[in-house]
Amino acid sequence: MTAFNSDVYIERRAKAGELVKQRGLGGLVIGTGAEFAYLTGSWASSHERLTALVIAPDAAAVIAPVTDIQSLGLEDASDVNVVGWRDGDNPYKLAAERLSQGTVGLGSSLTADHVFALQALLPETELAADAVADLFMVKDAEEVAQLSAAGEAIDRVHERAAELLKPGRTEREIAEELHAMILQEHERVEFVIVGSGPNGSNPHHDFSARVLQEGDPVVVDLGGALPSGYQSDCTRTHVVGDPARAPQDFLDAYAVLERAFQAACDAARPGITAGELDAAARDVITEAGYGEYFTHRLGHGIGLSGHEQPFIIAGSDVVLREGMAFSIEPGIYKPGEWGMRIEDIVRMTADGIEPLNRTRRDLGHDLGHDNA
Amino acid sequence: MTAFNSDVYIERRAKAGELVKQRGLGGLVIGTGAEFAYLTGSWASSHERLTALVIAPDAAAVIAPVTDIQSLGLEDASDVNVVGWRDGDNPYKLAAERLSQGTVGLGSSLTADHVFALQALLPETELAADAVADLFMVKDAEEVAQLSAAGEAIDRVHERAAELLKPGRTEREIAEELHAMILQEHERVEFVIVGSGPNGSNPHHDFSARVLQEGDPVVVDLGGALPSGYQSDCTRTHVVGDPARAPQDFLDAYAVLERAFQAACDAARPGITAGELDAAARDVITEAGYGEYFTHRLGHGIGLSGHEQPFIIAGSDVVLREGMAFSIEPGIYKPGEWGMRIEDIVRMTADGIEPLNRTRRDLGHDLGHDNA
Repeated sequence: MTAFNSDVYIERRAKAGELVKQRGLGGLVIGTGAEFAYLTGSWASSHERLTALVIAPDAAAVIAPVTDIQSLGLEDASDVNVVGWRDGDNPYKLAAERLSQGTVGLGSSLTADHVFALQALLPETELAADAVADLFMVKDAEEVAQLSAAGEAIDRVHERAAELLKPGRTEREIAEELHAMILQEHERVEFVIVGSGPNGSNPHHDFSARVLQEGDPVVVDLGGALPSGYQSDCTRTHVVGDPARAPQDFLDAYAVLERAFQAACDAARPGITAGELDAAARDVITEAGYGEYFTHRLGHGIGLSGHEQPFIIAGSDVVLREGMAFSIEPGIYKPGEWGMRIEDIVRMTADGIEPLNRTRRDLGHDLGHDNA
Repeated sequence: MTAFNSDVYIERRAKAGELVKQRGLGGLVIGTGAEFAYLTGSWASSHERLTALVIAPDAAAVIAPVTDIQSLGLEDASDVNVVGWRDGDNPYKLAAERLSQGTVGLGSSLTADHVFALQALLPETELAADAVADLFMVKDAEEVAQLSAAGEAIDRVHERAAELLKPGRTEREIAEELHAMILQEHERVEFVIVGSGPNGSNPHHDFSARVLQEGDPVVVDLGGALPSGYQSDCTRTHVVGDPARAPQDFLDAYAVLERAFQAACDAARPGITAGELDAAARDVITEAGYGEYFTHRLGHGIGLSGHEQPFIIAGSDVVLREGMAFSIEPGIYKPGEWGMRIEDIVRMTADGIEPLNRTRRDLGHDLGHDNA
């Protein structure tokens, strides 16, 4: 059920306990979601009933509805006290009782109903996002293996994507085929974007009934999750049919995008800040006159969550370190006309990056004569 | 795309504005999810990037990433100012600028990262759950029509469930068939529980590889959502084969459960509190000696969210009113042996309740001779 054996989670919780001590916190309260899964292996979901991992300086507990305890799969966890509560009990009190004096860090996935109920009982709280990110941002060898496998899985889908993009087909038809192909390679589909022509200019367009035309640029962004929970996320931009029939301004901009992508890959090394890395790609795009059309950050971390720290965003002082995994995904979006994005997941090594996606990034793969 | 036409949402937002004035609030900030969908018709999801509806006393705005604005579908909304932000901007500042002086209510679905960022900019905040629930708890005629249609949809699945429960089949096989049947009647599946024998004693068990045996009690709890977003949720308990072969203590307890269910239906009328209604069923179960085996609340509201206010729970002073829709779902769970639950969605009328589920609740439908 869980991605790794129970020792991995016991060790992660021990590190979380150390972090609580180092930061002089009263403890952490981590709600269900990716942070909870990172520390317990469980993807339990509590909705309006509180399920939370409580990390005090020298003890850990899971507070959960008695009705959900059997589903948590924490029976092997010798370091965690599992505390059940029933409707009518106050689970926040059960959490508060287990915390020490001092500011308590609340995990970022806790919803406002839980946050306010905890704040009512605790003298001081803060967002624990950065503290928890310190635990999960640097991936260990087993996590890298999972992210690499996820990268290979989505690459196998992308390799077959170009042949689906035929004039006369709708984005929806293609998206449904890609959905099935992602499922063949993953446990679940996270998202499918097929943005053709003007739809490509909306970076978060999913797909529509639009019919593809010869020469249409098409943004294809795909992601899924392996049984372990680790995710893939990769974007390629294609042209329907002969790339030479794409709009000339698109082709000109695509050359800039390729340079921007490469500039980020070249700049990435341990010690660079996330803001500096964003700038490495953004400067290329801005200098070429497309700055206003690059409307999002350069990238985001990835692991059990599709978007997680580190965020590769203008102004960020977060220092990128060996072992971090994140996307590099510059894009150019000309409103109402076309869009383009190149996205790889990369892993920071001792002296640069290793891409975890390896399919071709140029437009030539649509020409069909490269492998002849 | 939205459940109703744009006038419905404009009117709901006007009511929300009135409520802000009545309560003397600086405004409301509503994150994506069911509350946002209730007030906008949009099921946008913002994850770590803020998308929120800001209701100030005399104005409304939606703050959203520029990349997501096209997907919001709010173009018809004359009363809402849609404000886009780009990565690197501070969206919380955009929200705070639109609020008036006074305590600001934060919607319950906002996650801790957004809550803390808003709290850092606003002098005082509170959970807006009760205020927002005042808007959505009483369903209007169109919503009742949707919930009735959802009830009929899940009833059509439940009518065919008993025939799937054959000795030698696994819970998983049956769950997969039920999943497909729910999809035939709904837009999406919310959950499928097939809890046979001892698995039935875990109210939140989903399904497993366990093989059904003659005489096994089986809890079947099913829910889906219609294209409008309104949900179904209904539980029936069956016996595999001849009910007379079920354990005698199960059959004895089932008679108690039927009485408890009926007691709640009889007690329900406008003016009763949620706590009193919970007690109406719980007292029957407790007096029969099964009190410790009824481990959850009696019920919950339902609408665009599967579990929403009013919660029918011990000690609640919430007064139930005409037009509210909620579940009545007493259960008895004998650990490691068997479980049972009867659940209908009901609508409060002027003088009692109308059930929105209408399939038989007794065990006799498994005998196969009733309709002869």
